[in-house]
Amino acid sequence: MMESEKKVQLLRTPVEHIDITQFNVISLVEAMGHMAYTARDLARAAEIFDRMIADPDCAIILCLAGSLVSAGLKKIFVEMVRCRMVDAIVATGANLVDQDFFEGLGFRHYMAEAVLKTGAHDAELRNLGIDRIYDTLIDEEQLRICDETVRRIADELTPRAYSSREFLVAMGRFLDQSEQPVRDSIVLEAYRNEVPLFCPAFSDCSAGFGLVAHRAGRGNSPVVSIDSAKDFDELTRLKIHCRETGLLMIGGGVPKNFAQDVVVAADVLGMEVPMHKYAVQVTVADVRDGGLSGSTLVEASSWGKVDTVFEQMVFAEATLAVPLIAAYAWHKGAWRNRAPRRLSRFLKDM
Amino acid sequence: MMESEKKVQLLRTPVEHIDITQFNVISLVEAMGHMAYTARDLARAAEIFDRMIADPDCAIILCLAGSLVSAGLKKIFVEMVRCRMVDAIVATGANLVDQDFFEGLGFRHYMAEAVLKTGAHDAELRNLGIDRIYDTLIDEEQLRICDETVRRIADELTPRAYSSREFLVAMGRFLDQSEQPVRDSIVLEAYRNEVPLFCPAFSDCSAGFGLVAHRAGRGNSPVVSIDSAKDFDELTRLKIHCRETGLLMIGGGVPKNFAQDVVVAADVLGMEVPMHKYAVQVTVADVRDGGLSGSTLVEASSWGKVDTVFEQMVFAEATLAVPLIAAYAWHKGAWRNRAPRRLSRFLKDM
Amino acid sequence: MMESEKKVQLLRTPVEHIDITQFNVISLVEAMGHMAYTARDLARAAEIFDRMIADPDCAIILCLAGSLVSAGLKKIFVEMVRCRMVDAIVATGANLVDQDFFEGLGFRHYMAEAVLKTGAHDAELRNLGIDRIYDTLIDEEQLRICDETVRRIADELTPRAYSSREFLVAMGRFLDQSEQPVRDSIVLEAYRNEVPLFCPAFSDCSAGFGLVAHRAGRGNSPVVSIDSAKDFDELTRLKIHCRETGLLMIGGGVPKNFAQDVVVAADVLGMEVPMHKYAVQVTVADVRDGGLSGSTLVEASSWGKVDTVFEQMVFAEATLAVPLIAAYAWHKGAWRNRAPRRLSRFLKDM
Amino acid sequence: MMESEKKVQLLRTPVEHIDITQFNVISLVEAMGHMAYTARDLARAAEIFDRMIADPDCAIILCLAGSLVSAGLKKIFVEMVRCRMVDAIVATGANLVDQDFFEGLGFRHYMAEAVLKTGAHDAELRNLGIDRIYDTLIDEEQLRICDETVRRIADELTPRAYSSREFLVAMGRFLDQSEQPVRDSIVLEAYRNEVPLFCPAFSDCSAGFGLVAHRAGRGNSPVVSIDSAKDFDELTRLKIHCRETGLLMIGGGVPKNFAQDVVVAADVLGMEVPMHKYAVQVTVADVRDGGLSGSTLVEASSWGKVDTVFEQMVFAEATLAVPLIAAYAWHKGAWRNRAPRRLSRFLKDM
Repeated sequence: MMESEKKVQLLRTPVEHIDITQFNVISLVEAMGHMAYTARDLARAAEIFDRMIADPDCAIILCLAGSLVSAGLKKIFVEMVRCRMVDAIVATGANLVDQDFFEGLGFRHYMAEAVLKTGAHDAELRNLGIDRIYDTLIDEEQLRICDETVRRIADELTPRAYSSREFLVAMGRFLDQSEQPVRDSIVLEAYRNEVPLFCPAFSDCSAGFGLVAHRAGRGNSPVVSIDSAKDFDELTRLKIHCRETGLLMIGGGVPKNFAQDVVVAADVLGMEVPMHKYAVQVTVADVRDGGLSGSTLVEASSWGKVDTVFEQMVFAEATLAVPLIAAYAWHKGAWRNRAPRRLSRFLKDM
Repeated sequence: MMESEKKVQLLRTPVEHIDITQFNVISLVEAMGHMAYTARDLARAAEIFDRMIADPDCAIILCLAGSLVSAGLKKIFVEMVRCRMVDAIVATGANLVDQDFFEGLGFRHYMAEAVLKTGAHDAELRNLGIDRIYDTLIDEEQLRICDETVRRIADELTPRAYSSREFLVAMGRFLDQSEQPVRDSIVLEAYRNEVPLFCPAFSDCSAGFGLVAHRAGRGNSPVVSIDSAKDFDELTRLKIHCRETGLLMIGGGVPKNFAQDVVVAADVLGMEVPMHKYAVQVTVADVRDGGLSGSTLVEASSWGKVDTVFEQMVFAEATLAVPLIAAYAWHKGAWRNRAPRRLSRFLKDM
Repeated sequence: MMESEKKVQLLRTPVEHIDITQFNVISLVEAMGHMAYTARDLARAAEIFDRMIADPDCAIILCLAGSLVSAGLKKIFVEMVRCRMVDAIVATGANLVDQDFFEGLGFRHYMAEAVLKTGAHDAELRNLGIDRIYDTLIDEEQLRICDETVRRIADELTPRAYSSREFLVAMGRFLDQSEQPVRDSIVLEAYRNEVPLFCPAFSDCSAGFGLVAHRAGRGNSPVVSIDSAKDFDELTRLKIHCRETGLLMIGGGVPKNFAQDVVVAADVLGMEVPMHKYAVQVTVADVRDGGLSGSTLVEASSWGKVDTVFEQMVFAEATLAVPLIAAYAWHKGAWRNRAPRRLSRFLKDM
Repeated sequence: MMESEKKVQLLRTPVEHIDITQFNVISLVEAMGHMAYTARDLARAAEIFDRMIADPDCAIILCLAGSLVSAGLKKIFVEMVRCRMVDAIVATGANLVDQDFFEGLGFRHYMAEAVLKTGAHDAELRNLGIDRIYDTLIDEEQLRICDETVRRIADELTPRAYSSREFLVAMGRFLDQSEQPVRDSIVLEAYRNEVPLFCPAFSDCSAGFGLVAHRAGRGNSPVVSIDSAKDFDELTRLKIHCRETGLLMIGGGVPKNFAQDVVVAADVLGMEVPMHKYAVQVTVADVRDGGLSGSTLVEASSWGKVDTVFEQMVFAEATLAVPLIAAYAWHKGAWRNRAPRRLSRFLKDM
């Protein structure tokens, strides 16, 4: 078989994003609440997420780490933005740029055959220009188009220091103005609904490649730079503005730490703000290596970051737990009475 | 007991950093190489790390994620810098700022009694101004001094966009010029040995608090900003400059991704560079959630980032594995014949 | 508060077993099949379980390890027995005796408040005569009645060597003849449906306590003994009798090993039997410690135990995954056309 | 290449057992005690194990689960028996029969090349008659000789119900009387030092194959049976006899549960005995699935099984942690003043 045929054959079956609006799992999740271990914890997490949404004073921050968009969870996050279930998002660049913006450009992620998970064929994938994320495949050429698109967006901006949030607005606008039909996209939906997106390690992804190319193209001329301190400043000001907040964290990493830290940052600025009132985290990370990703939300309370009345860790891989938690909250419908916060406006006026 | 007495009692026993120069584990590690599972993998990882050091053409990048410095591993990394066992470091802000720079200022981390690990006393710790990392305690007042010191350093810099590397040079200089005796510090030792430090999510730590305060103090005047794209650009140029590279990764997260990605970034710039020739990672993260932290180094080869001849994952919590790997390589002594690369100079001249 | 009041208060909210007949998750699970990671694996596992049931030539062996019954999964296994979805069960004593038979006697498991999970109150629980399994509580006095009941059953049997299967028949008969109304019970339902139950480490649970008491009561007279070699012999003969088999394994441990081994045992007896044709395992155990619980089903194929066409590991805590897998297969309804195998009859006649 | 050559090539490099008498790690482990996470926990575990040995009133029970002997840990356990560091052992059949007795017969385990770990070549291994345990290989023909040897031992015993302990004495005697030189073996060394070995799920291993063959050979004649209730009875009587006890548990599973349960069993017999005074467990199992293997030793205290003053869990894969813990205790040398308990004598006279 020729290489190109082989590649076509491997990239045949796209990952499909699950649509939580189709699955009313309220009674299933409630039944799980009377069981033990993860089932019980998941039910409580779902109930806390619903409670956040129903609390008119609470702004909700969604934190995304891990390869979630490529895994078929994108539509859930898009739906959350659309239905006013989240007010701000802190995410890794992989989720927002390499995966979501990438799909916004019309590209897809593909299901890998089981044998590819062993890694025994990675050299062959390398030769075919296919990148692998565990059981999922990506066409590297398409990823390069994504990098290049970020570069073009940077090239058209006035050179100065931007927060990742500002740059992601530009990326949302790009998708919004695209002449091609655009797929569901968090970046686009957040742009349209004025939900701010933060990516505190913005260059650690496809965007980084685009920005490195942008810098190379500029030579000694001024460049677009991404100021992560500005991100932190903006999210802190949002916290001060909103006061009551809840966190829905999928995975740990930088987004978890960054969003938790804003309570302390507000204090550093001399503003007294309440701890995050609600906090849910879905993770399989282990507490015993001392890493932040697996650290308990109770531990975060020693730092004055998270209150402990409504906190729940869920020990589950995200693709199994997130659809249930999100579908529960969506079908409970508290979002129907929730006004959009449009926090991007607050930041624009800042 | 009064609160202050209670606090003094809790913060009584400091974590002591292990000194690998005292423990010749070569034969122990070699014996482990004839066993199975983690013992065998660890021995191979140690052997690969030694091989990197002995390879005159290979520049070594150390990646640090997780709370490693607070855990007593600092002296190991300081020793690696001092003994030319690493040429560049990519780390989380927690390691470099909250923990290493913090200790450089004269502060310590403290051992918590076992019962505190349960989280049952976190509210009390909160009231005492004590922060907890699993089994380790920190005086929050001292951490605020660390934040404030970062602010002062920012205040004294000319306002413009800095890479985190540049800012960390300023922090190293600060310690170097300190009139107080300074403890062992990665930031200081790297400054003195011209080993560049990168912190791609720089505001996601104590430095973020300092920079937010710096911004607030400046009002509408120009500020110091931290440009993560510049970091990526610099590390990519280092890769192009050095060509052959090896990675020693403790934990995963942003440092792992960032350091791996430079191979692709070089390609984006039109420069053909070899994949990372050597790669070792110590982690307990699981491959099955699709997260980058637990993803295999073989998977990274599908992305063209890591070569697969000399790669080894080690399934172990870092405090157990890193002393053995590092002590093995230190006592093998290949570093004695290794010239310092002083890569900071290359970046300064860039 | 008095101790007895305190105990009553702690043992207030029983764990409720989930009823899969109420939740048609077919389309949810199918949607998960187009995602990645655990969601995709779970969907495939559910599909394989359904395929086993629909295969008229395949006898299905359910393996249970971990505290599953106490966790609210009992009704699922009872339903599987009732609906001819399993033909034999291999389980730990904890599941069959301490938890299932215990509930059959009218006792319950109770939900513990979150703070009890930390272990900070275990001394107090000890004093109240309450046993804890992570987030679940048990009245120790009731557990002693369970031990004592096993003893009475042993006392009434003719002293000789029994397989655990034979003894579990006596336990099922005991429940069947009970004058009190009996709750759902795997032991009872299996007795009524002539589904053999095997417990290869039978004394490693409440049954052990009962048997030790039985032996003590007998002094030097002949006693009832439990012959684990007879268990292995019986299950091996079942394998030879049924030929085609499928395994649904929840957790690992002895049940997983025992059920896999019968293929080899048949070979030792000079009988050629096919490997297990289908195999599904739900576990969070890690492959990297070399333990059998986390070992892959592909590895089992090197031993000639499991075929690799229809095998699937699912990385998930059981309370989350098992309801979905079981409900999928129940609602697909292939069991409606499946004849009961009543394998206990075959063993009786052996 | 012919099949037989291929097999010879794959089974070329044997696993070598680590010799702790060669590695004085006292100062290394003590230094780890001042660090955090696993290092600190391991140091405390080592200190508790040393304390058990130094306590003249404490009988020590070693519990073994997981594939430990095949992994190169055998010599450690042999040394512990020889040096009076343990007084009884509870283990899985895999460790004692398939691996230790197997090596006692002169066979070896072999190191697999890294690529075999992926499972991509298991079908080929199957065809070559090679069994795989993660990164280790076994010659299946040799394993069949092990099965067959167990059968011969059973054939020569008087038919009646034996505890696994009694049968393991017969296996030890077999090795002791062997005319071939016998390698280091736990079964042999325990026989010679009158240290009782318990294997509560005795038929769940190579021994099961041998016993099934024994039964088949006997037809309707009386057979040797293995009574697990007798095991439990014997270990309980040992507990009553010794009173003070300590547990060193490698892995979880049946051995952990069985050894912990004897405290309750003594109580069932109306004998008041103290809880296990010391308890150490090395495991990577997770507490969050409610399984016994990962359950905390503090949780065991709610059951009245383990005291909480000297208990320590160590989150580490055994091949890395056990050599350090055992070498620490061996070199501390408290065993030099410890009298052998020779508990097998007590059971013989029972």
